[in-house]
Amino acid sequence: MKITIAQLNPTIGDLRNNAETILTIAIEAANNGTNLLLTPELSLCGYPPRDLLLKPEFIDAMRSELEQLAADFPENLSGLIGFAERNQNAEEKGEKPLYNSIALIQNNQIKQVFHKHLLPTYDVFDEARYFQSGELPNHFKLNGIHIGVTICEDLWNDEEFWGKRAYSMNPIADLTALNVDFTVNLSASPYTIGKQRIRERMLTHTAIRFDQPIIYVNQVGANDDLIFDGGSFVVNRDGILCDRVPQMKAYNHTICWENQRFVSTEPIAPTLDQSAELYAALVLGVQDYARKCGFKQALLGLSGGIDSALVATIAADALGAENILGILMPSPYSSDHSISDAKQLAQNLGIKTQTTPIEPVMKSYDESLAEIFSGTEFGIAEENLQSRIRGTLLMGISNKFNYLLITTGNKSEIAVGYCTLYGDMNGGLAAIADVPKTKVYALCEWLNRTTEVIPSNIITKPPSAELKPGQLDQDSLPDYEILDDILDRIVQNHESPDQIIAAGHDRTIVEKISRLVKIAEFKRRQSAPGLKVTDRAFGTGWRMPIAQRWG
Amino acid sequence: MKITIAQLNPTIGDLRNNAETILTIAIEAANNGTNLLLTPELSLCGYPPRDLLLKPEFIDAMRSELEQLAADFPENLSGLIGFAERNQNAEEKGEKPLYNSIALIQNNQIKQVFHKHLLPTYDVFDEARYFQSGELPNHFKLNGIHIGVTICEDLWNDEEFWGKRAYSMNPIADLTALNVDFTVNLSASPYTIGKQRIRERMLTHTAIRFDQPIIYVNQVGANDDLIFDGGSFVVNRDGILCDRVPQMKAYNHTICWENQRFVSTEPIAPTLDQSAELYAALVLGVQDYARKCGFKQALLGLSGGIDSALVATIAADALGAENILGILMPSPYSSDHSISDAKQLAQNLGIKTQTTPIEPVMKSYDESLAEIFSGTEFGIAEENLQSRIRGTLLMGISNKFNYLLITTGNKSEIAVGYCTLYGDMNGGLAAIADVPKTKVYALCEWLNRTTEVIPSNIITKPPSAELKPGQLDQDSLPDYEILDDILDRIVQNHESPDQIIAAGHDRTIVEKISRLVKIAEFKRRQSAPGLKVTDRAFGTGWRMPIAQRWG
Repeated sequence: MKITIAQLNPTIGDLRNNAETILTIAIEAANNGTNLLLTPELSLCGYPPRDLLLKPEFIDAMRSELEQLAADFPENLSGLIGFAERNQNAEEKGEKPLYNSIALIQNNQIKQVFHKHLLPTYDVFDEARYFQSGELPNHFKLNGIHIGVTICEDLWNDEEFWGKRAYSMNPIADLTALNVDFTVNLSASPYTIGKQRIRERMLTHTAIRFDQPIIYVNQVGANDDLIFDGGSFVVNRDGILCDRVPQMKAYNHTICWENQRFVSTEPIAPTLDQSAELYAALVLGVQDYARKCGFKQALLGLSGGIDSALVATIAADALGAENILGILMPSPYSSDHSISDAKQLAQNLGIKTQTTPIEPVMKSYDESLAEIFSGTEFGIAEENLQSRIRGTLLMGISNKFNYLLITTGNKSEIAVGYCTLYGDMNGGLAAIADVPKTKVYALCEWLNRTTEVIPSNIITKPPSAELKPGQLDQDSLPDYEILDDILDRIVQNHESPDQIIAAGHDRTIVEKISRLVKIAEFKRRQSAPGLKVTDRAFGTGWRMPIAQRWG
Repeated sequence: MKITIAQLNPTIGDLRNNAETILTIAIEAANNGTNLLLTPELSLCGYPPRDLLLKPEFIDAMRSELEQLAADFPENLSGLIGFAERNQNAEEKGEKPLYNSIALIQNNQIKQVFHKHLLPTYDVFDEARYFQSGELPNHFKLNGIHIGVTICEDLWNDEEFWGKRAYSMNPIADLTALNVDFTVNLSASPYTIGKQRIRERMLTHTAIRFDQPIIYVNQVGANDDLIFDGGSFVVNRDGILCDRVPQMKAYNHTICWENQRFVSTEPIAPTLDQSAELYAALVLGVQDYARKCGFKQALLGLSGGIDSALVATIAADALGAENILGILMPSPYSSDHSISDAKQLAQNLGIKTQTTPIEPVMKSYDESLAEIFSGTEFGIAEENLQSRIRGTLLMGISNKFNYLLITTGNKSEIAVGYCTLYGDMNGGLAAIADVPKTKVYALCEWLNRTTEVIPSNIITKPPSAELKPGQLDQDSLPDYEILDDILDRIVQNHESPDQIIAAGHDRTIVEKISRLVKIAEFKRRQSAPGLKVTDRAFGTGWRMPIAQRWG
């Protein structure tokens, strides 16, 4: 039997085009003798559809699209297609109105529908908001071969692997009891640093433990803050990984089922090293946000600093250097190297630049505010003003020419509020909002591994916001190695100050950073969507009250 | 038996002070001969604690605080106290790590702990993210009286009342089978327009149906976007409402249980009419956000329009007129009446004003952008620029003097994107973000019911953003009555364009508005928290993708 994995990049809600993409692949696969086509979780509508699921017309249209797809499907091909199915009689039974479902298309009909059982409701996932947990087991036969069906989270509860249970049962146990020949896992699993390795280790463990080959099919492409990295793969029952599809791109790939083993038809795609993978994910994130929102061009402020240098590089790789405009906005506090470094970067990347000094606008604000501000000293208000002038200039250009403004703040500064709301936080997408400063450095070093992309002075000079004379980040923050470790413990590990101090950090610093993280919540609440690359990003999965007194 | 209802206004996470408030009330109640003290859901930490619940130290501290409170509690008083309890062995059983719990304090001990069974996971509620559903039934005996305990949502599943089930079971059915004498419902139920009436009708129905008196205890006070309106009340088994505590304020109140009926010790507080209730809710929302964030003073832009007039009035009532600063920022496109109307409003309210014309800053931006914008026509970019100059001036003053900036956009304009990101959307709190424009008018008419608070010209003149000569809202939008009806159908009822057209609206208008609602999502994602007053507000309960192609 031949099976085709369709590692798809759907656009959320674009039912018609998503279905057409599936159909095109299905026809090609059938022509090549494929028996079964596999698509990711919710492949018709894209993952995550979020509150579009609350619209009855959307659910109806998805059903119609599925029926049309079944009617158009190649006659000899079976397919597993992801969609959201209405839970009939939900209001009588007191259940959620939908299932997260997979339809089995066979002989131009919707032959069976399988429902996801384990519904992730943590971090960025809200599945219990929409979906009812389905009955188990999910399985079917094709040409005498018995196939188990699991949907994403259904295979993320191997208590032997994790050392704990997240749900009371593990759906693959039932499938094993039924003696299925193999199990497919149709997923939409977002990228985080190191996650592909975890997926492969986990499913290798599960395959061996349950003596079952597993085909893992993942969605690819970015939807708002979430980047799906693909990396679909196949593990045989002995735990040997026999197939892997490349990460970060839409890809169709056929494997063969022979003598109770999967055999690949192509070499196994290599995994990427951490920096290469992270960089590729960020490029995909920018590319898809722009494309799916209808932008062809983007702009950003180039300060001469390392954050905007990295984001410019990502943007140029995502949309083409010719589509990126860098705006230089020096102030009287800008150092000479800010301009020269930014220009050198733009030259290295081949992006256009425009220079607009902000001093005249600063002066006009100073005059307008002179009366109200009289008798006060230069401070945060004046520093923020510079940042807001830059943010306003950038948005003016964005509005005028319909360029996507990409904001350049990193996770460390967003965590401690070292950023200006309505200033440098302006933009449609925050490309590196989940990349800590130390990883910003690591990515730039990696970019320069063969030739100098990021001018070395940008990497080596001490970081500064340049909002007052001689200002340096480290005047008010600890070294970034220390800061990022403390932040990781606060944000990701939920450690208490006492625990962090016990790990060797200075009490004064820990207490200061904890306080800064807390009081910056109001800024983060209004930040642009940021591409999630860690297990705990600010954004849709970070739900912290603002008006609160804890910690 | 005497029972005291403590309608509390906790600050999220302020465990120490919340516990002290409870203790103070407990001591007073005990001195007055009370036997049982009732507090709202999660009264120790305040509702909703959201992701603070993910911090183990927070859960530990809450337990310690509860134990201390039990030790300090008056000896002869029993109390029901809300807290989040750790679910022991959750990782073995594959369950969520916490329960949403009520502790029964008796004889200075934590005598029993009850767990919420029905966990709301829709709209702004994310309880399945944190909590495991508890076992039922929850009940205890006090002085021979048998009392059932339910927690908020536990009583929101009367399928006879709703005509449908939201959950498979109704916890009060079990309590009835156990023959409890009465049931308490300890809640944190956020205000929406008309909700108090629904609560009273619902629990009246439930009381009669299950032949059970019910004491309903609600939290009061605002936490970020959610306003809790209190309005705790008591229904006897015949459905007679025998007691109601005032809405919108912290209040302690004692009732007597005699001969299987509740008897009040005070007159029943009246309900408010819709405008009075909505206005009081908005005042509470602004007041608590400011207080709980540590602001004593607030500022806002006064355009001379109706939105800023309403918000200024709310702010003055919330924080005191002497603590409100209105900023007038006329442009060359401002009409004369804008200034005079704004000044008249300020005089009526007794708030301070400052006037800062924006033309000089406009000119400096125009010069800075002249080269980049050369050959283009005046358009959205230039209109937004004016709004962003105002937003930047307001934030400058906010930063300089630590005033809370309150933003003034209404729901209708936020829905269609008739607002400027990083401009008039700037602010820490969006006071009327969930109030449709037609209700803005209604509230202003109501405010003027005896004396003219809002200058009548502000109400009667045609609304305009005044960003270009002669501009009126209705040049680009339908009349607000039509717009608000269409928006209500789209946003609240999830109706399709075809359904809305079938209801009598013009196809061209419906399609335009649908499209505007969709493409404004990127703005709403970055908006300040807005006080929720309808069943479907933009904000924490609105989770719509940005990069999507549906509708």
